[in-house]
Amino acid sequence: MIILLGASGYFGKAFEQELLRRQWPYRPISRKEIDYTRFDSLLELLRETKASFLINAAGFTGRPNVDACETARAETLAGNTLLPLTIANACLAANIPWGHVSSGCIYSGAYFQGRIEKDLSQPHLKSLAETSPDLFRGFAEMDEPNFSFRRPPCSFYSGTKALAEEAITGLGQSYIWRVRLPFDHLDNPRNYISKLLRYPKLYDNVNSLSHRSECVSACLDLWERRAPFGIYNLTNPGFVTTRQVAAAIEKVLRPGRRFEFWANDDEFYQLAAKAPRSNCILDVSKLLKVGIKMRSGREALFDALDNWKS
Amino acid sequence: MIILLGASGYFGKAFEQELLRRQWPYRPISRKEIDYTRFDSLLELLRETKASFLINAAGFTGRPNVDACETARAETLAGNTLLPLTIANACLAANIPWGHVSSGCIYSGAYFQGRIEKDLSQPHLKSLAETSPDLFRGFAEMDEPNFSFRRPPCSFYSGTKALAEEAITGLGQSYIWRVRLPFDHLDNPRNYISKLLRYPKLYDNVNSLSHRSECVSACLDLWERRAPFGIYNLTNPGFVTTRQVAAAIEKVLRPGRRFEFWANDDEFYQLAAKAPRSNCILDVSKLLKVGIKMRSGREALFDALDNWKS
Repeated sequence: MIILLGASGYFGKAFEQELLRRQWPYRPISRKEIDYTRFDSLLELLRETKASFLINAAGFTGRPNVDACETARAETLAGNTLLPLTIANACLAANIPWGHVSSGCIYSGAYFQGRIEKDLSQPHLKSLAETSPDLFRGFAEMDEPNFSFRRPPCSFYSGTKALAEEAITGLGQSYIWRVRLPFDHLDNPRNYISKLLRYPKLYDNVNSLSHRSECVSACLDLWERRAPFGIYNLTNPGFVTTRQVAAAIEKVLRPGRRFEFWANDDEFYQLAAKAPRSNCILDVSKLLKVGIKMRSGREALFDALDNWKS
Repeated sequence: MIILLGASGYFGKAFEQELLRRQWPYRPISRKEIDYTRFDSLLELLRETKASFLINAAGFTGRPNVDACETARAETLAGNTLLPLTIANACLAANIPWGHVSSGCIYSGAYFQGRIEKDLSQPHLKSLAETSPDLFRGFAEMDEPNFSFRRPPCSFYSGTKALAEEAITGLGQSYIWRVRLPFDHLDNPRNYISKLLRYPKLYDNVNSLSHRSECVSACLDLWERRAPFGIYNLTNPGFVTTRQVAAAIEKVLRPGRRFEFWANDDEFYQLAAKAPRSNCILDVSKLLKVGIKMRSGREALFDALDNWKS
């Protein structure tokens, strides 16, 4: 029996669908049913259900966007740091393996010609990202987060996600699944494509992306194959610039509009955003090494656009 | 066997002395010896030592003052929120009662004529605090913290302390001991009297204080008497204005100097402080009701000054 926390969320729903597809017995638990933020309630649940695995897809992301986490500090910490810590403790006490949906947003930038470049929004880098992607390499799992409370500036959200990783790493049998900018063919406020469609202006940067169902399937594959516990980057291989995604949307969906872009970082942060944003490339060699393949970000993106449902 | 965490800190040392005085068997544990921030290491320790009680006097307070916590966010959260949560979980798993040194700094102000007044630094209130103390009543244990992440503004330190209380309240058998502005007769950078002696200028406000050894003794009394678990305010009854303490210091220690004060809040926060400061009165009726008495703050203060050792 697999316990699924956060089943009503964007990733939780995808986990539920994939579990159904695989016909793996699972039980979604809502906080109304059982307050799984409490160690004793959670431990009892794990023991009573004879849980074989737990998926933590619960968390606090902020509505309408990550800026909301700057002020909702207690909720952000409780959902993104305290909850995973209590889950880690309870799973350790019950000797149960589990997986935690983390985020690549604890990094900013990428390796460029062998050195970390924290700001990929510089025009020459964005341009090179489109013409010479081989000059860039993403952050690997063991690279120290550089967009966290220990390496400010960061958003409050990113700080709490990075702190959670730190608190649970090496504790018991856990997978830490790092996702980034999720998308698929279904219009949704959490879908990266939907976000771009709705923003009045876009912020041009460079990012790795995670196709939602592919990513969730890869998470379960890790457990099915008994891959070593630890951190895994779960983005589709490669990366895109926001302009490339916008061009693809214009080409495939023909929304009858031209996307507008903020002139530069200053304008974006003055007018549209409060907290600093993570934009980064993740390296997925580790995932590939355990034999799990995902389509390139570009291929998955065009496929989502070709099958777009609004 | 009592397990003592944070024995090298200001409160930890006082706990150690009081445990020695009472001849209660105890074991101070340093993080170098055992990483008690990890659930598994801590649980093993509790079981191996057949611990009867645990005292958590560990925490991150910031050096030279609480402003340091504004930037050292990971350390502040790890020490003040994640550690108590893991201790609560481990003590619950091992069925061991424990006590946590919390802080009254999760409040600002006091009840004044029946209503919460968040800012006691207003001149007429400071004046009334000296002439008509009966008009004021401190916050009781069940009053919602009003200087926390949920009720901003607050200092980052206060936010992490309030969040810890929230995370561990009602979980297993725990005492939450709220202390404020500790002092005694021994000169120490953490001693409130020492701090006033060293500040170039003082910030005049109204506060309850905790005489360190009395407070620690009251913590152990709660456990010895098997008082109900839960939150307890552990300040000496009453409150003082900074001017009253300064006058007492001038009178008793005759340091040959007149204390200077910041003209007002604006000046203080512009020139001397970064994070907002908690200044508050705590109500100790709950402690008195279980039969534990502490001297009035004023009496304990004069006694400390009369026996001052620098």
